[in-house]
Amino acid sequence: MAKVGIIGHGVVGSGVASILLENADVLAARAGEKIELGGVCDLREFDVSYKHLFTKDAQEIYAAPDIDIVVECMGGKGLAYKFVKAALENGKHVVTSNKELIATCGTELEAIAAKKGVQLRYEASCGGGIPVIKPLEEDLGANRLTRVAGILNGTTNYILTRMREGGVSFETALEEAQQRGYAEADPSADVLGWDARRKICILAHVAFGTPLDDSAICSEGIDKLTQEDMLYARELGRAVKLLGMAELLPEGWRASVAPAMLPDTHPLACVNDVFNAVMVHGDRVDDVMFYGRGAGTAPTASAVCGDVLDIVRHPKKVGGRVECSELPALSSFTRELHLFLRVNVALTEETRAAVVSVFPQARFVQLDGEAFADEFALVTEQGAEDELLRRAEKLTAMLPCGAPIRYLTL
Amino acid sequence: MAKVGIIGHGVVGSGVASILLENADVLAARAGEKIELGGVCDLREFDVSYKHLFTKDAQEIYAAPDIDIVVECMGGKGLAYKFVKAALENGKHVVTSNKELIATCGTELEAIAAKKGVQLRYEASCGGGIPVIKPLEEDLGANRLTRVAGILNGTTNYILTRMREGGVSFETALEEAQQRGYAEADPSADVLGWDARRKICILAHVAFGTPLDDSAICSEGIDKLTQEDMLYARELGRAVKLLGMAELLPEGWRASVAPAMLPDTHPLACVNDVFNAVMVHGDRVDDVMFYGRGAGTAPTASAVCGDVLDIVRHPKKVGGRVECSELPALSSFTRELHLFLRVNVALTEETRAAVVSVFPQARFVQLDGEAFADEFALVTEQGAEDELLRRAEKLTAMLPCGAPIRYLTL
Repeated sequence: MAKVGIIGHGVVGSGVASILLENADVLAARAGEKIELGGVCDLREFDVSYKHLFTKDAQEIYAAPDIDIVVECMGGKGLAYKFVKAALENGKHVVTSNKELIATCGTELEAIAAKKGVQLRYEASCGGGIPVIKPLEEDLGANRLTRVAGILNGTTNYILTRMREGGVSFETALEEAQQRGYAEADPSADVLGWDARRKICILAHVAFGTPLDDSAICSEGIDKLTQEDMLYARELGRAVKLLGMAELLPEGWRASVAPAMLPDTHPLACVNDVFNAVMVHGDRVDDVMFYGRGAGTAPTASAVCGDVLDIVRHPKKVGGRVECSELPALSSFTRELHLFLRVNVALTEETRAAVVSVFPQARFVQLDGEAFADEFALVTEQGAEDELLRRAEKLTAMLPCGAPIRYLTL
Repeated sequence: MAKVGIIGHGVVGSGVASILLENADVLAARAGEKIELGGVCDLREFDVSYKHLFTKDAQEIYAAPDIDIVVECMGGKGLAYKFVKAALENGKHVVTSNKELIATCGTELEAIAAKKGVQLRYEASCGGGIPVIKPLEEDLGANRLTRVAGILNGTTNYILTRMREGGVSFETALEEAQQRGYAEADPSADVLGWDARRKICILAHVAFGTPLDDSAICSEGIDKLTQEDMLYARELGRAVKLLGMAELLPEGWRASVAPAMLPDTHPLACVNDVFNAVMVHGDRVDDVMFYGRGAGTAPTASAVCGDVLDIVRHPKKVGGRVECSELPALSSFTRELHLFLRVNVALTEETRAAVVSVFPQARFVQLDGEAFADEFALVTEQGAEDELLRRAEKLTAMLPCGAPIRYLTL
């Protein structure tokens, strides 16, 4: 029998307790032994059937002799860091859904786990309930993985879906997301791409064996996107998505989080509402995509309990990552792509000539309707992003352009 | 160090050898020890760098003292069954990509593996390179899984994509598939849904713990679909896919393989060309989808080598499936759905009245253009499939109708 202690009985922690209790038969069959809830630490009180297992003292979980696996669901870095570290040092396996903790302190905590011969697992930190970290490390383990790209934040994907399907503005879509509980009162971490950036760091580390420096990754949010951008995208047979992407090149790695226009027929373009998806490229398997709910009590708890199950089945960690020598971070702006640009003047002989003087192969888009009479848009030729951005600046000096959006061939 | 012997150096077997040789560093890092190619059995001769490892006698693989894992890539049931059984009885782990073998003899072979304390793995038998069997058993192991639905055959998906995108007939699309090497000279197993049926059997067994009887599953192929069906589907915002589906209900299981119209926004509708995808429903995780290449040398070999890697990391099998008491097979026609029906006469007051007398809530579809003047289509109200099919027969006695297509809400 294995005993699990939970620290933090919030959205995720309560879901984990619920699975341990209600799906105990399923877990026992798949693990080959019983998995039991041994204790819960939270400062709040809850009227639940297992309230006799509660404590307000985390030490009674992370240092309890009969607890084998500590599940950390507090979030944040301060106390969570302290408790996870203490649990590992006490020889407990740790499972966490805490992306902030893993993105910033994962390497240090993994080293402690390795020294103590225990496991630190964090499947739920990326993509909620979607199996992705373990598939990258194990199922696709025969591949050299060179790219991870994904829709890693449900809040922004919901907002973008509403802007496209409902024709509403960014502000209205954000309000809707808040009303439905998908976005927090301060939505910055989601909307500005910081949450997706943490996740792409974790995924790249898992895929490439390279610990990425979060702060070296350029992230652009969705707050500058407009309803009109969505209409142009539709006309172009494209969908706008907030895309996190990390690539391993022979000369280094590059990563970014930014809005991108993807072809409507691309599997990532079909990921809507709060759903998330991660697409991985391996040298043998080509592209593989994992899709599902990236947040929420039950899906996230499903991932946490998958990790628990794995630890019970195989407590000893065997094998490791592909060792990448410390590769340098490359500018994400070296990527070859097209840019989409909106221009806020009518398309005339003159404005067309101005565009062509900068982007000789530009493809022009003019939407029908009076509302669009005094504007047009264009898709540039393919080129390195930094070079195209320089030229876009040059064009902006001549014509009033909106913020460029990446236009990708994946 | 672990040694692998390959039986069958064809499409998949040669891909496995290539990974073992060219990605040896990746495998060693992830497994924690070296994985070496120890021998290859094939009656043919190949001019490859490892030709000194070849034998024409399978016994030199399945009974070799230094081989730990036998990879069976012959296909078929006769000799493959004999060699896999012999390997297991000789205490070798076995990895196979052979869906026919697993769908028909999997239960027997798994019992032998269990008795001998070795593993029988077959990730590559469903969905080629896509991780799906292991994620169902492990990553989603905390869930009660109740539905598996998927696009499990690349040949038919390529044909359907071409019929939709290229506007070509079934016959032309099939010829194209044969020219590209996606379809065999005798395409029956793919086109009639038998290949997908084998895979849905395997997946349902893994998900529900219930060995399904292949012959109890109704399979309908794509050979009766027309270009016109695709045009109606497009008008309805739908895509036609060959869908394998298995569901676990409290009273039993039901499974089927049949063409279905899915909403364009459904993730499975976005799976095009030779790609495959499997969508799984768990009580906690909700819907999760796995997408990728369902066939081909390198993707399939990626899945085989993922299994090899897993065995090397954890040779002892721990835990098992959720035990389902022997549940009965239910008719797949009890499912609640709509039907799509084409009617080969003009839509007049009279024909409309005939339809409404049978399907009072029918939704009518009339395509533009002279070619469609003398026909229309309809989507029936929701109901149990067998009841709707009975009524469709009644309508066919009154008006000339085409074969019904399932119209699903997933």
